[in-house]
Amino acid sequence: MGIIVQKYGGTSVADSQKIKNVAKRITQSHKDGNLVVVVVSAMGGSTDQLINLALEISEKPPERELDMLLSTGEQVSIALLAMAVSELGFQAISLTGNQVGIITDGFYSNARIKSINNDRIHSELNQGKVVILAGFQGISIDDEITTLGRGASDTTAVAVAASLNADRCEIYTDVDGIYTSDPRMVESARKLDQITYDEMLEMAGLGAKVLHSRCVELAKKFQVPLSVRSSFHEGEGTIVTKENKIMEEVVISGVTSDKDQAKISLIGLPDTPGVAAEIFQALADASINIDMIIQNASQDGTADLSFTTAEKDLDKTIEIVSEIKEKTGFNNVNKDCNIAKVSVIGIGMKSHVGIASKAFRALADAEINIQMISTSEIKISCVIQEDQTENAVQIIHDAFELGQIDSNA
Amino acid sequence: MGIIVQKYGGTSVADSQKIKNVAKRITQSHKDGNLVVVVVSAMGGSTDQLINLALEISEKPPERELDMLLSTGEQVSIALLAMAVSELGFQAISLTGNQVGIITDGFYSNARIKSINNDRIHSELNQGKVVILAGFQGISIDDEITTLGRGASDTTAVAVAASLNADRCEIYTDVDGIYTSDPRMVESARKLDQITYDEMLEMAGLGAKVLHSRCVELAKKFQVPLSVRSSFHEGEGTIVTKENKIMEEVVISGVTSDKDQAKISLIGLPDTPGVAAEIFQALADASINIDMIIQNASQDGTADLSFTTAEKDLDKTIEIVSEIKEKTGFNNVNKDCNIAKVSVIGIGMKSHVGIASKAFRALADAEINIQMISTSEIKISCVIQEDQTENAVQIIHDAFELGQIDSNA
Repeated sequence: MGIIVQKYGGTSVADSQKIKNVAKRITQSHKDGNLVVVVVSAMGGSTDQLINLALEISEKPPERELDMLLSTGEQVSIALLAMAVSELGFQAISLTGNQVGIITDGFYSNARIKSINNDRIHSELNQGKVVILAGFQGISIDDEITTLGRGASDTTAVAVAASLNADRCEIYTDVDGIYTSDPRMVESARKLDQITYDEMLEMAGLGAKVLHSRCVELAKKFQVPLSVRSSFHEGEGTIVTKENKIMEEVVISGVTSDKDQAKISLIGLPDTPGVAAEIFQALADASINIDMIIQNASQDGTADLSFTTAEKDLDKTIEIVSEIKEKTGFNNVNKDCNIAKVSVIGIGMKSHVGIASKAFRALADAEINIQMISTSEIKISCVIQEDQTENAVQIIHDAFELGQIDSNA
Repeated sequence: MGIIVQKYGGTSVADSQKIKNVAKRITQSHKDGNLVVVVVSAMGGSTDQLINLALEISEKPPERELDMLLSTGEQVSIALLAMAVSELGFQAISLTGNQVGIITDGFYSNARIKSINNDRIHSELNQGKVVILAGFQGISIDDEITTLGRGASDTTAVAVAASLNADRCEIYTDVDGIYTSDPRMVESARKLDQITYDEMLEMAGLGAKVLHSRCVELAKKFQVPLSVRSSFHEGEGTIVTKENKIMEEVVISGVTSDKDQAKISLIGLPDTPGVAAEIFQALADASINIDMIIQNASQDGTADLSFTTAEKDLDKTIEIVSEIKEKTGFNNVNKDCNIAKVSVIGIGMKSHVGIASKAFRALADAEINIQMISTSEIKISCVIQEDQTENAVQIIHDAFELGQIDSNA
């Protein structure tokens, strides 16, 4: 029998009725002949409630104690889910991160999994039980409870699936799967049957919120097939897997957008070596992530340098570049929050030409001005004016015929 | 420096403001030069909330999973309390039952502590930290989370105090200490400065709800001085300790009452050996606790047998005795819920005569009929009509002058 790892997020176990529904799904998979390991998040809303309690006591609670507090959320949901599975007449056992032996590096609130001990899981599976694990949490070698960062139950599920050499990892969530674009923005957006890890990584990084990058990276590293599907409806969802022949024929998998972007322009920089390095080092030291960068040399021996960052980091970025204004010698700093990034992603770009020009042409025909461009092997991103985002996404989606099932290039 | 163990119940940590107040008390004791170990219950009401969640899913949830669920309550309160102590500028660390190494016998929902590992506690105390432990929970040798039964955080505190050889164990609660009688019933009830373990055991068993018998038994066994005091007001509270000279001079420590009593009478039993044994064996097999027993032989060679039990067990008791009616040969069974037990407790009874007659005389003068009597070395209990309870308690309290500080015999 093969092992299936199923992961249910907070919205899927938000109340007792939803927990009972999840128990039905789990037992169905068990009845289908699978060895089922389940990873669960805290009940929807409960983590926020715990954080609010902590903030009533301390504005900046010690991270160790915050992890001690937050890890109770998953312990509640695994116990309740094990009760619900038992209530249906099946054997179930819940296990905390400590009981499983999910060993982490000990960094509170953002720990990384170092190893997973499978002995207990195998032993319980061999007794015919459904094994229900707490997501999001682990234990350091010093016996300290550590959490993996918000949304990290997906990561737990993939790590457990990799460790158990599971047939696949099913991520149950509040959407049906991965779409060619955000269905709230593009009416003709279509659910993908499959997508590669690399495409999913680009989509996750570019604004598609279904899976966290960290979980996809881990799945790619250990070649764990991911199945993203709805916990509320039936249906196959989307398989995230390694590249295969069929996928290579599909040129474009999706179009994403991200409005949480700001552009900073430094005007009149001296065009001498090392200036850009100095600026980006200062920003890196402050943990500010820079996305796109463009430098234009002017006729007068100076240059203009533009770059983008997350909108929330804008004020800090302005502060830092202002501090080094004299040292680096630029004249002015301009900022622009009224921008967005629209991206086209597809593994098939590697072997097809003309993708970029097709996207640029589509935007140009709609009189949407492209301010910045960056590309990777499987992605093209354009910075445009923010209020043109929906239009741009729709136009590119149409240009590549992503709403149609059979051809999209 | 001496070690002080402080225990705070659920009402003392029911919200963030109360948790902050508890943190102030703790740090005061730390500043006074003590090594402070704190045992905390779940926030008031949270255990009931968790139980209700479980009952929404299953009428009879598996006990293992219920323990997994309920143990989160204390984990929340220790984390929040550690945050509150840190916020006051002191070092604090919270520890779960697992992290301390509170090893239990593995009986879910009603486990007993087998051993406590002090290494981690000593190590944290030596680093100058206030150590905050989860009450109510432990871990079996199979790494399973077990709880000690409701209200058992007191037991955790005493066990930890015994294990650490602490100077004393302070139980903070919502009353000021142990009273000569229930102050809601007897206006002149007086707080006792001290009371012996044995008296406290009788009081706990006879309806005084401040401390659980199990915690007092443990304190007696390991000679841990208990201090019962209010977590909301200042004041010394009551010391529960071993017998000493001063205490022996005090004849009576308290008067308690218990209305949760029922009397069952079996009429016309054949007066032959083994009949009573048969009846009480059948009740013991059903885990029904019998309190007082009286047998009267009649002239006609039959006997009447009366006994008391908790009111909640009455229906089951009637059912069981009815099943063996033919076998044992009695004629009728009568039941009476309209009774109560009033008890007088005092270590000084051992060395003073006339206590029982004084109590009986006081009740007789008030025309309160005594239906049954049972005594121990330090206790006299009388069964009376339920609606005379308050009056009887008041009369006995007055007869022994318990409201006055200097003399009470």
